[in-house]
Amino acid sequence: MDLSRSGKESGDIAIPVREVKSSRSGKGAPPVVVASTTRLGQVPPTAGWRRGVGIIDLILRICAIATTLAAAAAMGTTSQNLPFFTQFFQFQASYDDFPTFTFFLAGNAITCAYLVLSLPFSIVCIVRPHIIGARMLLLIFDTLVLALTMAAASAAAAVVYLAHNGNPNTNWPALCQQFNEFCPRVSGAVVGSFLGVLILTVLVVLSAAALRRN
Amino acid sequence: MDLSRSGKESGDIAIPVREVKSSRSGKGAPPVVVASTTRLGQVPPTAGWRRGVGIIDLILRICAIATTLAAAAAMGTTSQNLPFFTQFFQFQASYDDFPTFTFFLAGNAITCAYLVLSLPFSIVCIVRPHIIGARMLLLIFDTLVLALTMAAASAAAAVVYLAHNGNPNTNWPALCQQFNEFCPRVSGAVVGSFLGVLILTVLVVLSAAALRRN
Repeated sequence: MDLSRSGKESGDIAIPVREVKSSRSGKGAPPVVVASTTRLGQVPPTAGWRRGVGIIDLILRICAIATTLAAAAAMGTTSQNLPFFTQFFQFQASYDDFPTFTFFLAGNAITCAYLVLSLPFSIVCIVRPHIIGARMLLLIFDTLVLALTMAAASAAAAVVYLAHNGNPNTNWPALCQQFNEFCPRVSGAVVGSFLGVLILTVLVVLSAAALRRN
Repeated sequence: MDLSRSGKESGDIAIPVREVKSSRSGKGAPPVVVASTTRLGQVPPTAGWRRGVGIIDLILRICAIATTLAAAAAMGTTSQNLPFFTQFFQFQASYDDFPTFTFFLAGNAITCAYLVLSLPFSIVCIVRPHIIGARMLLLIFDTLVLALTMAAASAAAAVVYLAHNGNPNTNWPALCQQFNEFCPRVSGAVVGSFLGVLILTVLVVLSAAALRRN
């Protein structure tokens, strides 16, 4: 079992190392060909599978870029002024009135930027499926970015929930009755961010599956 | 003759893969090849490394159980009544006044329960390092639980932030000036939960590293 595994490993590197050529065609010595496998015959079982995973990885990554970019854009461009104002200030709501929404915007922007920067590595994983380091790097940073996006999305979701419902125990009034344009857009941004989280989770599991078939 | 030569060679290179023991030193007697390899001699390069990772995994898992359990317990047992009350109701704060804190409690309890249930699988990964399925299973569920804990912790953190600071734009008053016992304990619970998230992140990366050395 160990020997066959090491054989697989040498197959991964795709160098047909062991060719035994028996020069002597002596009396009782038949020519023994040990490793007569072709390169193409060795590689596919893992490399082809990994290449497929890499292509799915690339597509999912582009989808995640779209969702996180949309979430950040929707949050960043939403602003609503109410038509009435007091003598002190006009009521207006935008993302920078809420620290949580600023964090949401920053988190999604960082995730989006990381995903764009990770595209070359993902392509490397398709072109050269045996480079494990790139896959490992992607998995580590995907996990970190998954945590960041989840933090941003759920913190914003908690505040959006409060804005919709308020909290009578603490005298926090519901905000969305007045800001009837602001709230739906922010909710949509949160939903988009959660979609990004979902895709990132799949990406992490896919990367682990690609690492498994070593 | 050929075999005896190979026996000499193996003796020279001192790799105890196959030992050739020729019991009879007769002229035409074929030497008997006995595969006397010890298990420990074959396994080390990957299995020993994986076993080390498994032990770290188990220790970190127990730490994560402690942190999430402490977070859930601190959140669940915190309740404070204020000494004054209006004609309508007495002011009191506990976790079930805030849906976010209820989610925090549930999320941390689920994570803690999962981690306890995952201990046998982690032990299996130490005892039988070549079982990749268990490791893969742990990685997938660790990722899901990481996302859940992160969601719970950051949603609660957003509400705790509001409770500490309030939000003048939306007339949400700061709560912690009155509930001076409730707020610190809840903040501590959130910190504990974030510690659990940190440990889970390390666990995911460790599992991926163990899968890599396949």
